[in-house]
Amino acid sequence: MILEKIVSEGLAHNSYLVGADGAAAVIDPRRDCGVYVEIAERHGLAITHIFETHRNEDYCIGSLELAKQTGAAILHGAAMDFAYGTPVHDGDEFAVGSLQIRVLETPGHTDESISLVLTDTGVSPDPYLVFTGDALFAGDVGRTDFFKDRLEEMAGKLHDALWQKILPLGDGVIVCPAHGAGSVCGGGIGDLPLTTIGYEKGTNLLLHLDRETFIREKSTEHHYIPPYFAMMERYNRSGVPPLAGRQVMRPLAPAEVEGAADKGALIVDIRGPAAFAGGHVPGSLNIWSGGLSSFLGYFASYDRPIVFVDEFNLALQSAEAQALRIGFDRIAGYLGGGMGAWNKSGRPIGRCGTCAVGEVDLHAEGQFILDVRDIRNRTAAGAIPGSYHVYAGEIEGGLAAIPKDRHVLVYCDAGFKGSLAASVLLRNGYGRVTNILGGMAAWKKAGLPVEWTGA
Amino acid sequence: MILEKIVSEGLAHNSYLVGADGAAAVIDPRRDCGVYVEIAERHGLAITHIFETHRNEDYCIGSLELAKQTGAAILHGAAMDFAYGTPVHDGDEFAVGSLQIRVLETPGHTDESISLVLTDTGVSPDPYLVFTGDALFAGDVGRTDFFKDRLEEMAGKLHDALWQKILPLGDGVIVCPAHGAGSVCGGGIGDLPLTTIGYEKGTNLLLHLDRETFIREKSTEHHYIPPYFAMMERYNRSGVPPLAGRQVMRPLAPAEVEGAADKGALIVDIRGPAAFAGGHVPGSLNIWSGGLSSFLGYFASYDRPIVFVDEFNLALQSAEAQALRIGFDRIAGYLGGGMGAWNKSGRPIGRCGTCAVGEVDLHAEGQFILDVRDIRNRTAAGAIPGSYHVYAGEIEGGLAAIPKDRHVLVYCDAGFKGSLAASVLLRNGYGRVTNILGGMAAWKKAGLPVEWTGA
Amino acid sequence: MILEKIVSEGLAHNSYLVGADGAAAVIDPRRDCGVYVEIAERHGLAITHIFETHRNEDYCIGSLELAKQTGAAILHGAAMDFAYGTPVHDGDEFAVGSLQIRVLETPGHTDESISLVLTDTGVSPDPYLVFTGDALFAGDVGRTDFFKDRLEEMAGKLHDALWQKILPLGDGVIVCPAHGAGSVCGGGIGDLPLTTIGYEKGTNLLLHLDRETFIREKSTEHHYIPPYFAMMERYNRSGVPPLAGRQVMRPLAPAEVEGAADKGALIVDIRGPAAFAGGHVPGSLNIWSGGLSSFLGYFASYDRPIVFVDEFNLALQSAEAQALRIGFDRIAGYLGGGMGAWNKSGRPIGRCGTCAVGEVDLHAEGQFILDVRDIRNRTAAGAIPGSYHVYAGEIEGGLAAIPKDRHVLVYCDAGFKGSLAASVLLRNGYGRVTNILGGMAAWKKAGLPVEWTGA
Amino acid sequence: MILEKIVSEGLAHNSYLVGADGAAAVIDPRRDCGVYVEIAERHGLAITHIFETHRNEDYCIGSLELAKQTGAAILHGAAMDFAYGTPVHDGDEFAVGSLQIRVLETPGHTDESISLVLTDTGVSPDPYLVFTGDALFAGDVGRTDFFKDRLEEMAGKLHDALWQKILPLGDGVIVCPAHGAGSVCGGGIGDLPLTTIGYEKGTNLLLHLDRETFIREKSTEHHYIPPYFAMMERYNRSGVPPLAGRQVMRPLAPAEVEGAADKGALIVDIRGPAAFAGGHVPGSLNIWSGGLSSFLGYFASYDRPIVFVDEFNLALQSAEAQALRIGFDRIAGYLGGGMGAWNKSGRPIGRCGTCAVGEVDLHAEGQFILDVRDIRNRTAAGAIPGSYHVYAGEIEGGLAAIPKDRHVLVYCDAGFKGSLAASVLLRNGYGRVTNILGGMAAWKKAGLPVEWTGA
Repeated sequence: MILEKIVSEGLAHNSYLVGADGAAAVIDPRRDCGVYVEIAERHGLAITHIFETHRNEDYCIGSLELAKQTGAAILHGAAMDFAYGTPVHDGDEFAVGSLQIRVLETPGHTDESISLVLTDTGVSPDPYLVFTGDALFAGDVGRTDFFKDRLEEMAGKLHDALWQKILPLGDGVIVCPAHGAGSVCGGGIGDLPLTTIGYEKGTNLLLHLDRETFIREKSTEHHYIPPYFAMMERYNRSGVPPLAGRQVMRPLAPAEVEGAADKGALIVDIRGPAAFAGGHVPGSLNIWSGGLSSFLGYFASYDRPIVFVDEFNLALQSAEAQALRIGFDRIAGYLGGGMGAWNKSGRPIGRCGTCAVGEVDLHAEGQFILDVRDIRNRTAAGAIPGSYHVYAGEIEGGLAAIPKDRHVLVYCDAGFKGSLAASVLLRNGYGRVTNILGGMAAWKKAGLPVEWTGA
Repeated sequence: MILEKIVSEGLAHNSYLVGADGAAAVIDPRRDCGVYVEIAERHGLAITHIFETHRNEDYCIGSLELAKQTGAAILHGAAMDFAYGTPVHDGDEFAVGSLQIRVLETPGHTDESISLVLTDTGVSPDPYLVFTGDALFAGDVGRTDFFKDRLEEMAGKLHDALWQKILPLGDGVIVCPAHGAGSVCGGGIGDLPLTTIGYEKGTNLLLHLDRETFIREKSTEHHYIPPYFAMMERYNRSGVPPLAGRQVMRPLAPAEVEGAADKGALIVDIRGPAAFAGGHVPGSLNIWSGGLSSFLGYFASYDRPIVFVDEFNLALQSAEAQALRIGFDRIAGYLGGGMGAWNKSGRPIGRCGTCAVGEVDLHAEGQFILDVRDIRNRTAAGAIPGSYHVYAGEIEGGLAAIPKDRHVLVYCDAGFKGSLAASVLLRNGYGRVTNILGGMAAWKKAGLPVEWTGA
Repeated sequence: MILEKIVSEGLAHNSYLVGADGAAAVIDPRRDCGVYVEIAERHGLAITHIFETHRNEDYCIGSLELAKQTGAAILHGAAMDFAYGTPVHDGDEFAVGSLQIRVLETPGHTDESISLVLTDTGVSPDPYLVFTGDALFAGDVGRTDFFKDRLEEMAGKLHDALWQKILPLGDGVIVCPAHGAGSVCGGGIGDLPLTTIGYEKGTNLLLHLDRETFIREKSTEHHYIPPYFAMMERYNRSGVPPLAGRQVMRPLAPAEVEGAADKGALIVDIRGPAAFAGGHVPGSLNIWSGGLSSFLGYFASYDRPIVFVDEFNLALQSAEAQALRIGFDRIAGYLGGGMGAWNKSGRPIGRCGTCAVGEVDLHAEGQFILDVRDIRNRTAAGAIPGSYHVYAGEIEGGLAAIPKDRHVLVYCDAGFKGSLAASVLLRNGYGRVTNILGGMAAWKKAGLPVEWTGA
Repeated sequence: MILEKIVSEGLAHNSYLVGADGAAAVIDPRRDCGVYVEIAERHGLAITHIFETHRNEDYCIGSLELAKQTGAAILHGAAMDFAYGTPVHDGDEFAVGSLQIRVLETPGHTDESISLVLTDTGVSPDPYLVFTGDALFAGDVGRTDFFKDRLEEMAGKLHDALWQKILPLGDGVIVCPAHGAGSVCGGGIGDLPLTTIGYEKGTNLLLHLDRETFIREKSTEHHYIPPYFAMMERYNRSGVPPLAGRQVMRPLAPAEVEGAADKGALIVDIRGPAAFAGGHVPGSLNIWSGGLSSFLGYFASYDRPIVFVDEFNLALQSAEAQALRIGFDRIAGYLGGGMGAWNKSGRPIGRCGTCAVGEVDLHAEGQFILDVRDIRNRTAAGAIPGSYHVYAGEIEGGLAAIPKDRHVLVYCDAGFKGSLAASVLLRNGYGRVTNILGGMAAWKKAGLPVEWTGA
């Protein structure tokens, strides 16, 4: 049996290829689906089935793209009306070589969510592995907050799917979820390559709750919803446009970058906080390359082109892949020659303040300390005394509360989101902005005073 | 300056990417054009120009595919009416960063053939390099036999293009031709990575002829014309269909291979002569993987699917690429698990005789010795005494002269084309066929008697 | 957590890299250990610990090589006296970042065998995964036949290690064994990428036996012991010689191959059965590339050089890697240009007969049908009526029983080992040898009569 | 014929592999010589000859390393006493398959410098190509300043080698030099992938000089000599230590980096100027990754370990390769997790000022404008009015002239060397340092006033 997990970094999205005897199935393929074709070729497998565990909100499903290349059947839960593919129901079974894949309807995260039980019929009729989609993760379960008027209902459905469908499969069954640590689809996903039902039963605290507590917990927990989720939902329901034959990213001269910005392009600086601080294209937004999957969807729009700026252009391919995976296909290009080319052009250069935690004077006058972390981290880890909170992703909507005439000290967990927020402030005319490098992590390591804001 | 030569093995086709200052031109791109995009990305270049030195007869031009991905302009000679791109004329100049590319009309191989003179304006106005397409090769010049009623006219045009346009560029100018050794576009192309005008003037015997002799020589020389050339001409004039999103090759079970053959698929065994001889799918055609570019176009048809058979499936990707480059997109798949899977299925297995040169008895009765080499090699290198000649590519049309009731001993240069011819004989009901391994090369090494058939 | 399984094909040997927080451990590294360094680099991990689950009999341990490159500590079971590394004992614990690795002494396969329990202390003190070495496989357990005078003792030790140490870890614990399907270290290892204790308890029939039956079963089962195992044991105990700076494999001309053979080199033809049959270097041994790990160690010797012969030289790197992994460092080279170069040299060419199962006439006179499969397959799957059995690996010792004046029809499971045996017969002067392509698999698919030889 | 140019970026060093008929020669191999082995394997070539065009001053010759792996002969000029290899003399000829390599003694750059004339004997006895080492480059000739007491003598020797040995080979001969644009071995090397004798005769201004002027010009031109050249000379004469089995680079925690620095390690920040300015490890030296080959040898010492600091750890492998190529094998590791890990540790963070050219006030008081370019660029391109010059590589020796109590504005060509110099100032206690981003390139683009300092 071939089992490969394909991780889309940034999204922390897991897709899987499983195969035997010349045939293979792909579970939750991403849009740049060459990787599945390549694995299948390497092992002499024909991809015959594509399963979608659910509609997915956080990335573009690659099923249509992959089906076109392979002729495979697309299969998804029946409880949503997709414009393509074939609905499957609880108990449906599919043969992939000697493997059998059985459908479990496991709603809760969404209505049409399914899990897929894999049995190696050559060995035994016992279930071997389950692809749980966004139902069960290592150390967490799927979020159930997408239907604001059905919060408890969805939480209850998820509870029942877990307790009635998934957990009874047996402690020894391997669990392959659709997301790993860092995904926006679950706040507490553990950093494990895979898990088992037994391990989750022992260690996943949500599985220790009774039904009522589980529902209360899940229906009140807080998650952010990036605005691009709406587009993903539409795309994934109706069919994602094809990538094939798309125009590739190209280098732009400084004058072209400037021209693109003048016509509305979003200039995204994908470098780290220090590089952005030391010199950047004025007006650019700073999302470090590893954060594009999480934050580009808060700031980019589907009808404005994107231009990337890097230092030595080593992270551009990752940046492009991350943008395409969430549907931002209008990438005008990147600054050819990197930031150095801009500098050499003699154009103005933006800067931002930085400081180490030891340099912060909590009693300085005229300053405004801004916390841009996930509110859950603020609650859980404490905050710099006197700081005000707006989440980095939502800062454009929260500017009114941030005084323009003060020295704004921004911080986050480690300094990256802080730089993102700082770049938004600079774009919006704030004059004096300083990013506290190292953020709350450094603050606590340095033993500085912490304020607890309560749950 | 970036200069990369991209060789399509088998076709011995050279394409080139040349670039500087963020911009690049591609000369004669092939259809699977990801390689150009990848090189351009690696060097931070935008592909802005695509030049076609001529219509090309032996492969599918990738200009449309590459233009779609890059937005580059397609430029070709004005003397043919292409359905796409922009015609260019003698003296036209194009800037690619600091490089200048100037058009030379160099007809002879075809009417619209052009050469492209590259100058690095940052260094000097002197020409630095010339892309000669099929006008001038290392050790040879382009074939001029495509217009049967204008043989002398075309040879004369080529002469004039060489003597009036290319050779005067100067001895120190680097020559980058469209083909290397082994191409069907020139019989005597030398195995040099590139050459110079000076080196060719010194060593290329055709350049030592006077105009009259050159025309006589060129208008009487012999070349084969594979039937697929007609499709290439049509495709390249009107636009090659897109590759993007095409269905990928998949493994087939023995029963599926059998079924495909029953419905008219061509089963192509891409292994070497010994493997084919020791056991093959009955009815399969044997073209060793390295010979697909040269021979598939003689036997495959554009409306019948192809199935590849390999031993350990290590050469399939090369086989697929070779087929696609000459437009055979209907690849049904390949025998999954290789020839061993066929064997295990319990089906009948074909065999063919082999022998070493030392085992041939020229005086044996009832045998028929068949030479399937290029006729030029027969003339130049001599032949096994008493052998009859039909070119391997044309053997299907020459069966009438080959007696079915005799033991047919086939030979070629080294044994590969011999196996191809043997497979055709077996497909056509010949009962006793033996391929002389090592062919004429072995025959001569072993010091066996040679018959000279005259020029 | 990073967990990567590195499979050495052919050996079906699994090694693992597990890491977190900048540190990593490697379990049972192979000799060509660049792969671990590369994975560690990709994830920013320093390899700090190397664990050997046991001395290993079937390949060269790469610990010394990897330790030299990384400075990592080498750790192995205390019950054997290794010339390097540090002995560890039951209960010893090692921290690798936030991961904890605990030693379980699990003798049985060998005395010093250990298993390694992995706990992610950031999640829970529960065991997450266990590296079981050769104690527990998917669907099988380790062989216990290495100490001929202690067969029951070792089987009993293994039983107790399984029941007292491994199985109690809990059903949800992931099991990562040292071998996959096809290994000589277990006859019935299932083809699963990994397994769990719960899945094994449910599906591994050996775990359903009581102690007494388990011991009887294990102490009477049959395994082959290739002669190279003795060298592996010596190497792995005293330290494998370094690979670094070793002379690389080079192409040889036909005359050089001939010369090497004359001086005692073993010519190993790594092509498939049909290719060997259709034409080979006289005197060569045919081990198909995928079978080198299993059979080279039966026929090669550590003081004679090896020369590989391939068709198109696509499998040479795999062949070299397989040879080096079992310590055959004296690789003189390979036939440059492949078998075709031999053919072209005009030298004699060997041949072997082949036939499909349908062509076998059980009643033909003067023939001798030879079964060269693993004896367990003969017992389990039945045999061609009237066939005689010698295992392919041991055929050189069994020639006395095979009549030289008869037409020997060889068969195995699918045809590969049959060709190996046929090549040995030809090397030993047998005049008429035919390999039944497809072997017993084809025989049964074709519905031909089967003889049951009993257990 | 196979001809591949292998470029070591940063060093702008060209090595070459040329081969035919199963054999290959490598010219001027670098130390990490796997690339030659890989190319040879891909083409079925045995590397039989290694030629060194001269002793080389700027990198470690890889001949011993490559010879160990391949058994090839090492050949170098007879006029120096190497501790390994075989001396060759003018006119010596070597056969590499059908290729012939003939030695030309071409002293001038050094005494033992040779050029190698390649002839394809299968085509013609005419020379096809010449490997010119450091004698002739595209647009330049080798530097002749290594023997301070023999400046005119060496320049004269080079003149004679060029005019008597190389130029007479013929205009059509391809020229493959040992360096490309950016090398410290020639100030004016053009950015051409290769050149020809004819093109150089037409465009290389040094070849237009008479002997006397050539000698005057060459014996008075200015080149820098990095201190590591002395070690390269020693290494290359006596034999470079083997790389094989060397300990690989590993990630270090912030505390380990700090500890290493305390014990004398050199912390090298390989990021760009803006990143260094925005936040760096206090005391670190900033050499951007692309400048390591040129500048590490000015600042590192062979007995102190090096620690690299990057932002996202994407350039570490290049950094390690560059260090090893110039013999800095003592690489303690790199900051695991990149600069962000340092920030999170709560430690102090260094900063440096930056500004755009438009922000410079030439009349500001208390400032000191420091030009750290190559003096030739200062002369050729002009300078910022009132600026003082010290070359970046030599700044540690020039600190006395730079006032510590002034605001030092550093600039160079584009901003990278400026940041290097700024980092040296900061390490030496300068309090107020600003790097002018974009340097002289930006200054001139912005139309700001230029001061000409004369030749």
